[in-house]
Amino acid sequence: MAENKFLDKINSPADVKKLSVPQLEQLAKEIRQLLISVISHTGGHLAPNLGVVELTLALHKVFNTPEDKIIFDVGHQAYIHKIITGRREQFPTLRQYGGLSGFPKRSESEHDAFGTGHSSTSISAALGMACARDLQGEDYNVVAVIGDGSMTGGMAFEALNNAGMLHKNMIVVLNDNEMSISKNVGAMSEYLYQLRTGETYNKIKNDIEGWLKNMEFGSDVLKAIRRLKGSVKYLMVPTSIFEELGFTYLGPVDGHDLDGLLDVLQAAKKIDGPVMVHVLTKKGKGYKPAEESPNKFHGTGPFDIATGKKITNPNAPVSYTEVFGKTLTKLADIDDKIVGITAAMPDGTGLNIFAEAHKDHFFDVGIAEQHAVTAAAGMAAAGMKPVAAIYSTFMQRAYDSIMHDICMQKLHVTLCLDRAGLVGDDGYTHHGVFDYAYLRSIPNMTIMAPKDENELQHMLKTALDFDGPVSVRYPRGSGVGVALDTQWQDLPIGKAEVLRTGKDVCFWAIGSMVQTALDAAELLEAQGISAGVVNMRFAKPLDVELLREHAQSYGKIITLEEGVLAGGVGSAILEELNENKLLEQCEVRCFGIPDEFVMHGDKKLLFRDLGLDTPTIAAKAAAFVKGEEE
Amino acid sequence: MAENKFLDKINSPADVKKLSVPQLEQLAKEIRQLLISVISHTGGHLAPNLGVVELTLALHKVFNTPEDKIIFDVGHQAYIHKIITGRREQFPTLRQYGGLSGFPKRSESEHDAFGTGHSSTSISAALGMACARDLQGEDYNVVAVIGDGSMTGGMAFEALNNAGMLHKNMIVVLNDNEMSISKNVGAMSEYLYQLRTGETYNKIKNDIEGWLKNMEFGSDVLKAIRRLKGSVKYLMVPTSIFEELGFTYLGPVDGHDLDGLLDVLQAAKKIDGPVMVHVLTKKGKGYKPAEESPNKFHGTGPFDIATGKKITNPNAPVSYTEVFGKTLTKLADIDDKIVGITAAMPDGTGLNIFAEAHKDHFFDVGIAEQHAVTAAAGMAAAGMKPVAAIYSTFMQRAYDSIMHDICMQKLHVTLCLDRAGLVGDDGYTHHGVFDYAYLRSIPNMTIMAPKDENELQHMLKTALDFDGPVSVRYPRGSGVGVALDTQWQDLPIGKAEVLRTGKDVCFWAIGSMVQTALDAAELLEAQGISAGVVNMRFAKPLDVELLREHAQSYGKIITLEEGVLAGGVGSAILEELNENKLLEQCEVRCFGIPDEFVMHGDKKLLFRDLGLDTPTIAAKAAAFVKGEEE
Repeated sequence: MAENKFLDKINSPADVKKLSVPQLEQLAKEIRQLLISVISHTGGHLAPNLGVVELTLALHKVFNTPEDKIIFDVGHQAYIHKIITGRREQFPTLRQYGGLSGFPKRSESEHDAFGTGHSSTSISAALGMACARDLQGEDYNVVAVIGDGSMTGGMAFEALNNAGMLHKNMIVVLNDNEMSISKNVGAMSEYLYQLRTGETYNKIKNDIEGWLKNMEFGSDVLKAIRRLKGSVKYLMVPTSIFEELGFTYLGPVDGHDLDGLLDVLQAAKKIDGPVMVHVLTKKGKGYKPAEESPNKFHGTGPFDIATGKKITNPNAPVSYTEVFGKTLTKLADIDDKIVGITAAMPDGTGLNIFAEAHKDHFFDVGIAEQHAVTAAAGMAAAGMKPVAAIYSTFMQRAYDSIMHDICMQKLHVTLCLDRAGLVGDDGYTHHGVFDYAYLRSIPNMTIMAPKDENELQHMLKTALDFDGPVSVRYPRGSGVGVALDTQWQDLPIGKAEVLRTGKDVCFWAIGSMVQTALDAAELLEAQGISAGVVNMRFAKPLDVELLREHAQSYGKIITLEEGVLAGGVGSAILEELNENKLLEQCEVRCFGIPDEFVMHGDKKLLFRDLGLDTPTIAAKAAAFVKGEEE
Repeated sequence: MAENKFLDKINSPADVKKLSVPQLEQLAKEIRQLLISVISHTGGHLAPNLGVVELTLALHKVFNTPEDKIIFDVGHQAYIHKIITGRREQFPTLRQYGGLSGFPKRSESEHDAFGTGHSSTSISAALGMACARDLQGEDYNVVAVIGDGSMTGGMAFEALNNAGMLHKNMIVVLNDNEMSISKNVGAMSEYLYQLRTGETYNKIKNDIEGWLKNMEFGSDVLKAIRRLKGSVKYLMVPTSIFEELGFTYLGPVDGHDLDGLLDVLQAAKKIDGPVMVHVLTKKGKGYKPAEESPNKFHGTGPFDIATGKKITNPNAPVSYTEVFGKTLTKLADIDDKIVGITAAMPDGTGLNIFAEAHKDHFFDVGIAEQHAVTAAAGMAAAGMKPVAAIYSTFMQRAYDSIMHDICMQKLHVTLCLDRAGLVGDDGYTHHGVFDYAYLRSIPNMTIMAPKDENELQHMLKTALDFDGPVSVRYPRGSGVGVALDTQWQDLPIGKAEVLRTGKDVCFWAIGSMVQTALDAAELLEAQGISAGVVNMRFAKPLDVELLREHAQSYGKIITLEEGVLAGGVGSAILEELNENKLLEQCEVRCFGIPDEFVMHGDKKLLFRDLGLDTPTIAAKAAAFVKGEEE
């Protein structure tokens, strides 16, 4: 990489503060180069970060971290913040095993005031901090930086509602790029569009911004400004929702104009009570392929900088996501009761495929998992067959909705949990390892997990022909590489599949771990150990009959799941065997995710560290069979 | 009860439709008498229902259930709906074992379009139904009836945001009584107050209402009205947030004026797209004690009609709630880092006591559990010791916040889960039986449950002296009746308490079930069986050392918990024993809530049905010891 004029000297926010606006503009260019260069290798959230370069520099010019607290909602747009708060040299390790996290982390830097990953938490956290600050008689600034997409999450509204009442000094920077991950949806988004484009309003705004630029403020002046804005708006311009909720609204301001940003942030800092700064940014700014396809470069894998083309493995099997999208589309071709629902992830879930073919039956509700699931319940109550496709980790948001709105009423909603299991680079805020545990304790829930992408097709068909709450969970990324059947069949509910018969021990594996079990059985066979393999298919209900039989015939069972052990599938098997008083004659070993949050990095390395790789499992199984465990 | 002129003849909504407005007014009086009379015996949600008598009658006069769908948010205000949809005669069985549920239930009546219990779900469900209706080419009305308190729940905003964009025909009736359960809080509430009282706005509104009253509407006229309102508001009046979000806003209208209600609902029915009808009601209307103390009569036990005084057992031990409130208050007297947070339940959680003494350290965030928990995390990150007191069943809403904002960052937030276990009359939407399961699978979480109200004090002290995510769960209602220590001490983390030593079997009981274990052990002793009793105190971490010892010394362990068995505490004990390879030498029997949603009714009867009463447990334990199980 070429020598950088400014970036190479930025080791802390103090170094940013020294620079003039033209120098910061140059620094922004250098940062964009670094972002593009590193992310083209590591993958990551390119477009969101390209959009907030100037904004982040302005924040660090105006505020003093770590004393002042800046909370990045979702946090995938915090790369620039990381680069300028002492982590520039580590930046090429981004999202890599042992390297920098792709999200803010309190344990990584004192400049990361609050860890994020899931959406819409920042205003709550900021308000909590502002309350704590005031109770302790301290005096620092608290700033939440939140995208317009995250504003569709109900929790953000809960926090706004509370903040508007408590009147604490805090600043919410609304980073409005008209996108969440895909094109933003919802009435609030349309409303923001009006705010952005309202001409009358802009005139007033420009007048006031003129004031802001040219004056040093005393509190009297600020009060006068607010009075003016207050009196004018009721006569001439639509009021801002945020002002109705008790915020002082400043903006909209061009998020790539450093002068404007510095002015508005300086002004916001001096205003009493909660302030909403409305900043307009362009996702992907400064890199043409990302500007043109911001959703493709929202979270990206490695790519070729010159062309913007993704560097993909041409031999990689089709992804679970794509199989899901195509299968659901075909099922809907012959069943017009099927509806597809996403919470702002049409591409990520594969529902974009469905949406093309069945536009009227497709609903993107925004980042709003609770609403997605309860709206699905409403659709089911009114006779449709809704399929809500939501990443496992985000489905956690809808835990109560699943319980209260679907399962208590035994409604036929199909929950499709993509990115279940370890997700790799995104790390612990995004691993989907709790779903077996949180779903299986809910009555009336049926839980499936396919052993491969072909079985996913049959499971989707099974789920849609079922009548009741049902879920299918499957991993991120490529399938196993098996052939895809063109005829689909209903799988018998609660019945497992015996893939391999053995004598010494039997693997009871589910979902992604079935292949591991088969591979381990091969390794064991080479050692003269005869292992059976069961593809459980269902985490609930369990195939109790087969389990009893195997407990007696094998006397040794190993459970394998890509999910937490505490309350997980292995735990369910223990419960069932205990209920049947079979634990005296059958020993059980459970393999899964231990009771800790798993870091980020290459999935293979994470599996190795957790002892969930095939050689380790085979070795432990062998010791189990031979009575030679440590 | 006196003969009723109209009520006795109301067997279906058709009978309501026949009545004139003066007759409906008489009917309303009779219904209020019935409500007061029945609830004075059964207990229930009196004040909310007294507030919506006219509204419910108007809804059923204008709409045709079950074809039209009326969804009552939370649902505790659906008593009148139940009475006039064929359940009048059963009404005295309200909330009783085997009787009518206190909430709408699809399984109870075809007129109950969607089951509710938790807040803020109705707009999502209604929108889902409206989408399903349109996709199926059907033509019926969908109405969500939601209180202003429920509007503070983020999910309601998620649904509004989505509904405003989709532009489906649907009606949201905003039942604005300026209360959620206690006095409503938040900026939205203040905003609604402005809407209610804005004089200029009211003038316009009255003019338009005049139109509405005197005209039959064609769609052109309606468009004209909307145009007029649209053009006028930008010149003269604050716009309504709801209109900014794509709703047609009608109101505010007096919720006790049947003529006005009928007019506005008829108008709403004819408007294209989503409509918000703002109705002003008085909680407790028509019963003076409830009008004066609406929060005391929100959910009430039996009371004396003449005086409004609660009929209480003067010998009942102090409640867990009160012990919590008083203990936290005293702890905060000497530690100004302590903060108390409630989600709209200051009285229900006992934080009202705390609030009186420590007003500045008390936060009622509205019905917003996610925000409550994440704001607590923010406070903890900024150096305070927040205590979020939320009913177990409502904490489910914050599952992801607990995981993502507290536990991933190991922040010292204390979660106090009141109403844990079976709650009795409120039934399955309110039983708090999932918390052990959903909390224990989250890394870094410490989970306590006291055996009695005295131990609750020590656990609170322990939690506040701890450093990390910690929870305490305790049941609804009276404590055991033990003396309360005045000196509190820290309990050793992860250590159980041996209450009774035996030889044949050992109970490992937690929380509310410890007393049952002690009683069962007494019964067993009379049969010559020697049972030990362990008060587990911690569901996580388990007292592994003691457990190993007991597995070996007793060889027979019975786990007892007031929570679901699937993934619960018994399951944790099985996991731990299995991990230690002790299940061959120690048999385990687990008692808890089976995998079903438990109905409503007297707790004793529910416990009996579930086999969790002392005699059943003692009998099963005896059979276990003697090897005589069925």
